[in-house]
Amino acid sequence: MKVELISIGDELLIGQTINTNAAWLGQTLTLFGARIIRTSTISDQDSEIRSALDAISEEIDCVIITGGLGPTKDDITKHTLAAYYGLKLAIHQETLAHIENYFEKRNRPMLEANHLQAMLPLGCIVLPNKNGTAAGMWFNHNKQIIISLPGVPYEMKRIVDEELLPLLANRFKVSTHYHKTAHTQGIGESFLAEKIKSWEDALRKDGLELAYLPSPGYVKLRINSYKGNSDKDKIDTYFKKLEELIPEALFGYEGDTLVSVIAKRLIEHKLSIGTVESCTAGLLAQQLTSISGASDYFEGSLLSYSDAIKIKVGQVDEKLIEENGAVSEEVARSMAEEGRKTLGVDICISTTGIAGPTGGTGEKPVGLIWIAIATKEKTFVKSFQFGDSRDRNQQMMVATALNFLRFEVLQI
Amino acid sequence: MKVELISIGDELLIGQTINTNAAWLGQTLTLFGARIIRTSTISDQDSEIRSALDAISEEIDCVIITGGLGPTKDDITKHTLAAYYGLKLAIHQETLAHIENYFEKRNRPMLEANHLQAMLPLGCIVLPNKNGTAAGMWFNHNKQIIISLPGVPYEMKRIVDEELLPLLANRFKVSTHYHKTAHTQGIGESFLAEKIKSWEDALRKDGLELAYLPSPGYVKLRINSYKGNSDKDKIDTYFKKLEELIPEALFGYEGDTLVSVIAKRLIEHKLSIGTVESCTAGLLAQQLTSISGASDYFEGSLLSYSDAIKIKVGQVDEKLIEENGAVSEEVARSMAEEGRKTLGVDICISTTGIAGPTGGTGEKPVGLIWIAIATKEKTFVKSFQFGDSRDRNQQMMVATALNFLRFEVLQI
Repeated sequence: MKVELISIGDELLIGQTINTNAAWLGQTLTLFGARIIRTSTISDQDSEIRSALDAISEEIDCVIITGGLGPTKDDITKHTLAAYYGLKLAIHQETLAHIENYFEKRNRPMLEANHLQAMLPLGCIVLPNKNGTAAGMWFNHNKQIIISLPGVPYEMKRIVDEELLPLLANRFKVSTHYHKTAHTQGIGESFLAEKIKSWEDALRKDGLELAYLPSPGYVKLRINSYKGNSDKDKIDTYFKKLEELIPEALFGYEGDTLVSVIAKRLIEHKLSIGTVESCTAGLLAQQLTSISGASDYFEGSLLSYSDAIKIKVGQVDEKLIEENGAVSEEVARSMAEEGRKTLGVDICISTTGIAGPTGGTGEKPVGLIWIAIATKEKTFVKSFQFGDSRDRNQQMMVATALNFLRFEVLQI
Repeated sequence: MKVELISIGDELLIGQTINTNAAWLGQTLTLFGARIIRTSTISDQDSEIRSALDAISEEIDCVIITGGLGPTKDDITKHTLAAYYGLKLAIHQETLAHIENYFEKRNRPMLEANHLQAMLPLGCIVLPNKNGTAAGMWFNHNKQIIISLPGVPYEMKRIVDEELLPLLANRFKVSTHYHKTAHTQGIGESFLAEKIKSWEDALRKDGLELAYLPSPGYVKLRINSYKGNSDKDKIDTYFKKLEELIPEALFGYEGDTLVSVIAKRLIEHKLSIGTVESCTAGLLAQQLTSISGASDYFEGSLLSYSDAIKIKVGQVDEKLIEENGAVSEEVARSMAEEGRKTLGVDICISTTGIAGPTGGTGEKPVGLIWIAIATKEKTFVKSFQFGDSRDRNQQMMVATALNFLRFEVLQI
């Protein structure tokens, strides 16, 4: 199955928006078993869209077009496609009902422009958009399939996952290759590669492929087999060995996240949790509550950004801060232990550090963080050192704190 | 000057790398005065590169190709281009000297593969790469210019800025095109289009272009002029009118964010701020502290996720929750007013709502939020209704809360 992607939008051409849709579609369709032959980006003008359609090569099985389906004047993709394939537009009742319901639920008035979004080309297969008002469309033209999707990533992705891929799977025999991904945190890519070198060599000799997929704080390890499911057990055995090699780093597989692993453990043991955050400023709490049902274990937090609040609300002894500084082992420990009492939780995790880019000193440079985890029995405290980008530091600090928390709650 | 961009690389097609080069070139060349007609991404195969060269339309003045100039076997762009234009390869002495110097400076051995990087097509103009070993190339073919650049962003950008743009400026009389972008929050794209219809019509009649760029909770409005800076004042006048049309939505221009606008105002008026969050669970605090220097205005927060913490730490009267429910105008108001006292801040903003996907009722559906802003003089309370995706709701809730806060702090 050979695929071409066409992105429509001046904001992409002039670089105001980075084309993440093409990357996401490339990744998703490659995993699905398709081969992306080419992607292009064009202006939202009738003539440009027509030229792109004219230029589709015969070898392509499926063209996926994103963008230009909104309700405003510069959204012309639907009209151009309908005219190009000689189809008339008519109200699509199901889409109209969905749009009406969409606005009703949000207590917002429905405008004529939204009503017109239910006008769809007769003869196309409609791909419902559960996250928005611009439906996707599937056109059969000669032996090719032309798909038109909205450009809003959150809408486009849901249509692809829930509507398009099942239909494409029916239509094409894709040679599904089997792969499984493990998640690690806290070891850099090259250090990890060094540490698991002999494991990786054995795996490659065994006819399997390994890919490293790094992102800030994390490295995913994906094992691929082109023999499909028959290699499943072999791959599982390799991952079991990997768990023994890097227990502090490897935290899960596939859809697991640090938070889902932590949440599962807390719920199993009926433990409640809270945070007392300084440098992470709520990001840790936000992550811990990022899954539905978080109220089963998460109680609340104190974000003691200023020293005044650390003392007044966080109950940290003023002298501790004077003697050790706010970014210190002692203050991190006190924040977690006092926070445990104030919030009335079983486990409290605290962070105090210097996110940067300013505020560092020779002794306590930007990127330094102390993290403490207070439980009924014991308080664990550790420090970590990161770089000098504020955004990146906050991300790394939260990932590190979550992995530290995961490792400790798994011992309970 | 009409430009086409071609990116070469399988890692782009399969979505392992997001194509930031195309966005950067789009932005840089647009500001330079060129018009990007189309961009495409192709595989690093000889036949694919040849097809892309064959397909260049006559209207294009300049094609910029990135990628495939490295020293490894999968880097074939140079060889394909030389063969396609019938040029022989020979050692380019200046480039060779540069590469030798490059390795010497780094105390690294120079490999045969690097020596071969100095083999360049005879007859092309060499664009020196001061940040690496792969030189850029400029080919004149009929009346078109074909440029080949390395794909490493840091190398490519320096060649463009220091070598390519000066040469292009000599060759073309570019009519620098001018654009300015305004940011709005809280009005959907279609509702916004309806509301500013006559403004937009006037603008278009005036020879200007308008683009809507929506993202969750936000719509950017970009006015474009192909007449360059001479339209600057005209565009500013249109934006002034727009500010009067949608004061609650329009919050800034170009690099402004809701937080930067709020922070500026708070610092000017020496006001401190804190948050008391339930459904946003720290995301609001995290946003407010996302810029360096946040400690000049941000003190801290209370994340009272559970009712127990709303009562015990947040000082909300238990009866208020019993009588009205935790998601109510009364509780939002109390959270903000009590939070102001507990945190000792000038302004306190509170959120209480149902992020979902579970927890909604007929009367209080998923997506409902109450937001309160307590100041010394007055407390402002408003409710908003969003959809049923948890992630999206949290994003929308935070954007809405920030814009509500912006609007109120601008009145102070």
